[in-house]
Amino acid sequence: MADLIITSPSNPRLKSLAGLRRRRTREETGQTLIEGYEELTLALGAGVRPEALYYCPELMLDAPTQTRVVEQARRDGVETVQVSRTAFERAAYREGPDGFIAVVPSVVRACAELTVGPSALTVLCQAVEKPGNLGAMLRTADAAGAEAVVAADPVTDWGNPNLVRASKGTVFSVPVASDSTADTLAWLDTNGIALIATTPDTDLLHTEVDYTGAVAIAVGAEKYGLTDEVLDHAAHKVRIPMVGKANSLNVATSAAIVIYEAVRQRGASGTPSPH
Amino acid sequence: MADLIITSPSNPRLKSLAGLRRRRTREETGQTLIEGYEELTLALGAGVRPEALYYCPELMLDAPTQTRVVEQARRDGVETVQVSRTAFERAAYREGPDGFIAVVPSVVRACAELTVGPSALTVLCQAVEKPGNLGAMLRTADAAGAEAVVAADPVTDWGNPNLVRASKGTVFSVPVASDSTADTLAWLDTNGIALIATTPDTDLLHTEVDYTGAVAIAVGAEKYGLTDEVLDHAAHKVRIPMVGKANSLNVATSAAIVIYEAVRQRGASGTPSPH
Repeated sequence: MADLIITSPSNPRLKSLAGLRRRRTREETGQTLIEGYEELTLALGAGVRPEALYYCPELMLDAPTQTRVVEQARRDGVETVQVSRTAFERAAYREGPDGFIAVVPSVVRACAELTVGPSALTVLCQAVEKPGNLGAMLRTADAAGAEAVVAADPVTDWGNPNLVRASKGTVFSVPVASDSTADTLAWLDTNGIALIATTPDTDLLHTEVDYTGAVAIAVGAEKYGLTDEVLDHAAHKVRIPMVGKANSLNVATSAAIVIYEAVRQRGASGTPSPH
Repeated sequence: MADLIITSPSNPRLKSLAGLRRRRTREETGQTLIEGYEELTLALGAGVRPEALYYCPELMLDAPTQTRVVEQARRDGVETVQVSRTAFERAAYREGPDGFIAVVPSVVRACAELTVGPSALTVLCQAVEKPGNLGAMLRTADAAGAEAVVAADPVTDWGNPNLVRASKGTVFSVPVASDSTADTLAWLDTNGIALIATTPDTDLLHTEVDYTGAVAIAVGAEKYGLTDEVLDHAAHKVRIPMVGKANSLNVATSAAIVIYEAVRQRGASGTPSPH
């Protein structure tokens, strides 16, 4: 069957794509968007099945290779829709679109639906505000082999387009969940996961605690850090040493430094990544 | 003397501020902009002397406290200009301006003008493209107590407004320089600084080398990494272990992980920062 071809920027289907930039629409439909070839292939590799795939060969960086993704999706029964350049550029969220937008099911999961191993490395982000920071932490969690990332009392949803983009698609490959802080802490307890909370208000350095068992590394909101509810629940409160004149590291940077201290202690060597 | 007061958004002085968003104008005038109270106070604390300070009390988060910065600047002979809210919002680069814009001398310095100690921790960023990434690395360098950050073959200048903003003003407190890659490598040799280059194409982990002497941690362009010119010059080539499905960490995150491994080895404990 030949694909539907859309050439008009005012096509109602393209307008419904734009609707998914709003959190409310994402929550109502249970859908979100993936833009970009790299992000899409990562999600597909993680088993995500798009509900529709919009593509524009003219905008692809390497159409002969990249259209194979479209062909495979079509064989898998995904609806594929070709879009003209003008219409695609209007529909795309990001600047310089590369010819791929997919509608996919949102990741909506509570802690209780996560399955983690006995020595799991997990990450807890409480009330982090900027989607870009959550996305950056997902990339780090993916690289470090974290088994789950939980957003406690989240300000944004996992389907936020800026988050999906900043995560480079890892929001679909790293197990994520959203929950209240209380339920998140209860889940940690149930699974025997020790909470290691980052805060400037402690003498213990992040390098002075043991991360070799099941641990959750917790970071808080950009401006206010973790709440007392989390700090009081922590097995250890740790700080990253800072000697500079500015008063803090970026929250995603802080998370990366602590997560990779855990990786160092756990002796994970990773595999050399292809260049 | 009462301050000049500007109420018109089309005032030519405000227009000349907007001109400083262009690199060419920054290079021609030797000036750049600092926006934001936090960024400004950090720069002032680092000894930066503004050439002019534009302020808008209505936009300040805490005018009674923050106008003291204006009064001190006036006493120091800095030209201070009050701007109406409408005009200020038009002149501001960032969304949600907080009532402070200063014109300051650009940081333009070659490696040869840097002074570093015998065991200096320094950072080399080669051809990094995104101002936000350079800014984030400066925050980390500041927190870690790095003695210098050098941009080799830079794509952006240190006065780029997005860089200044992402750095939270640390571009004015951390010694920075721009130079060709060849001159940067020559400077490292002259100062006996060992080059530790990050690359995925090596078996050596970033935790397996010694950072306790004079070292420069080098990271490359977002897409292409370091050039052979830098890699061939390195005392050690190191990689960060990655087990995930995405193929790389963000460059600023990578830099932070390696810089903080150096901090760990060097035993710097920092000081507890005020909450």
